[in-house]
Amino acid sequence: MPIEIPRTALQLRSLIKRSGELELSLFEEAIPPPKPDEVIVRVEAAPMNPSDLGLLFGAADMKTAKAGGTPERPVITATVPDAAMKAMAGRLDQSMPVGNEGAGVVVAAGASPTAQAQLGKTVAAIGGAMYTQYRCLPAAQCMPLPEGTTPAEGASAFVNPLTALGMVETMKREGHKALVHTAAASNLGQMLNRICLADGIELVNIVRRKEQADILRAIGAKHVCDASAPAFMEDLTEALAVTGATLAFDAIGGGKLAGQILNAMEAALLRKSTEYSRYGTTTHKQVYIYGGLDRGPTEFTRGFGMSWGMGGWLLFSFLQKIGPEQAAKLKARVAAELKTTFASHYTREVSMREALKPEEIAVYGRQATGEKYLLNPNRA
Amino acid sequence: MPIEIPRTALQLRSLIKRSGELELSLFEEAIPPPKPDEVIVRVEAAPMNPSDLGLLFGAADMKTAKAGGTPERPVITATVPDAAMKAMAGRLDQSMPVGNEGAGVVVAAGASPTAQAQLGKTVAAIGGAMYTQYRCLPAAQCMPLPEGTTPAEGASAFVNPLTALGMVETMKREGHKALVHTAAASNLGQMLNRICLADGIELVNIVRRKEQADILRAIGAKHVCDASAPAFMEDLTEALAVTGATLAFDAIGGGKLAGQILNAMEAALLRKSTEYSRYGTTTHKQVYIYGGLDRGPTEFTRGFGMSWGMGGWLLFSFLQKIGPEQAAKLKARVAAELKTTFASHYTREVSMREALKPEEIAVYGRQATGEKYLLNPNRA
Repeated sequence: MPIEIPRTALQLRSLIKRSGELELSLFEEAIPPPKPDEVIVRVEAAPMNPSDLGLLFGAADMKTAKAGGTPERPVITATVPDAAMKAMAGRLDQSMPVGNEGAGVVVAAGASPTAQAQLGKTVAAIGGAMYTQYRCLPAAQCMPLPEGTTPAEGASAFVNPLTALGMVETMKREGHKALVHTAAASNLGQMLNRICLADGIELVNIVRRKEQADILRAIGAKHVCDASAPAFMEDLTEALAVTGATLAFDAIGGGKLAGQILNAMEAALLRKSTEYSRYGTTTHKQVYIYGGLDRGPTEFTRGFGMSWGMGGWLLFSFLQKIGPEQAAKLKARVAAELKTTFASHYTREVSMREALKPEEIAVYGRQATGEKYLLNPNRA
Repeated sequence: MPIEIPRTALQLRSLIKRSGELELSLFEEAIPPPKPDEVIVRVEAAPMNPSDLGLLFGAADMKTAKAGGTPERPVITATVPDAAMKAMAGRLDQSMPVGNEGAGVVVAAGASPTAQAQLGKTVAAIGGAMYTQYRCLPAAQCMPLPEGTTPAEGASAFVNPLTALGMVETMKREGHKALVHTAAASNLGQMLNRICLADGIELVNIVRRKEQADILRAIGAKHVCDASAPAFMEDLTEALAVTGATLAFDAIGGGKLAGQILNAMEAALLRKSTEYSRYGTTTHKQVYIYGGLDRGPTEFTRGFGMSWGMGGWLLFSFLQKIGPEQAAKLKARVAAELKTTFASHYTREVSMREALKPEEIAVYGRQATGEKYLLNPNRA
């Protein structure tokens, strides 16, 4: 018995106008009939990750957020600072759908066997525009979840799990033997800890508050350095010397942390070095910036010789680089360990209307560790 | 008739004491008899490159330089700021010889045919410790210069020429199609211009003064951007859009320039981009920092998406990476074009005693474009 599907779906949209105003609203869109290879997912859970919020808010200053519209169709407006408008040039006056990933039930499917096989199943999906009630997308972008998995449990089955696995894979491919991770008490950071514990990989966790260090130690993390502690650089250097980590993934981006990591790596390497070279050690030290929790400038003092690199790291580019076969292996591990290694936690589940309340934005917009929201577009 | 060789040679030495004092002096060292594969070079010309001065002065503040010693054996002392002492840890209390490269006449040779073949010849040599009157080193580290080449003409046959060729080679290996170079009016920068003109490679030159732009235009440079001009970012973006350069070599290191280059590269790429992505363009943009004319912190605003890299670039690591066969090809080109493509210019030739005068240090220590010194250790 086919599930009844409405003709239209509400979709969360983000628009930055040439005038410098951000507008968030609910847009009513027709649900198309699925093509042979497509399915229609009734989205019941989608995480509000930093990467989603980056598109949702753009460069707007959310302290200026104002509520408008009607209770049924709320609208949020906010101001984009002049200096930040240049970076928004590519998206001006385009109403953009949001939401990298999510999970829900397949309520309609095209004629192809792959699509038909998903009908009625709970699936996780990646493909953008997931902050919508019904999403039509290729069945290939969906992953059927193991029996007994709820959409909330499968909502974050792609971005965080594959990013965490991608870090470990990058470490192996680029010849490093241990890892450093910042903002390490996040959902992603906790996953990475569980992976590294299971796989016997040494991981140096950097956090910004004592409570975050406690969270990580409670799940078995061996090396935790608190960047707010006076002895941070000494602690970090010691952890790097013990683990031999020469690769870091940094979620912060702005400020001095990325450079501090490189300097501490070099200091740790110099402990074992016997001959002085003014070019520093010959071991390559790398920091990949994969997030931008601090949107401010990145600053570093070059005290780490000449063998170093800093750069962007993006999941989608990584998956492209390793190819579909390798990517499928990583995805299979995620599906098998979704309720253990790759479990996510959310502070609160909200509807799309609730997500457009200034008081909620004030909470989830901070992107603080332990304050992640789960969006349920089909919640009233 | 064998050339007469003294038993000892004077060598320029740099010492940083645990007390925080830099001491530059002339050290009398015994000249060893050459082993079978070695030659003894009477060094008559050695460039004072930024990389040499980095070792010579260390982190000392040369504004504090004081003259001491005797007219025959002058000594310079200067203070290393406390904050910089940590970076000097590896060299404390070690009297270090200086000078990456130089040229002179082979006055003695070991028994091997390779060594014997160089006897009496003018050679360029790389191997460190070249700021000395007589240098014993493996014949393999020497390159016999074409007939009629003076030591002064061959003094800079390695570091600058191979660095310039290495930039072009790196561009090809990493899949870029044009280059950006900063401090572009330097000896190295002029070489790079001549190489790029000869090889048909588009090069964007960044300079810091109008006179430097004039120097480059006079030797045929097509794209010259003056970082001190108000329209610098617009000019740079335009040059990057025209050339398609996505790889830069930066000699400055500190300040905002490296980041400005990445931002301008992204802006140039966005001109051709049709679809907005909040992760920026997918084209990899790279800046290699190969020098440190500005020793201050490096600062950048991440407005260039996720496909970017910044990192150190070091000639010796590059040569190791490409292997001896490829390196030999590059060296052969240098030898063939030493008086044209790879010609260097110096403001002044000094003896070792002159190099230890505070008034000379005040000039060559600035490492300003067009003020490079040539050291002649055998000049009285």
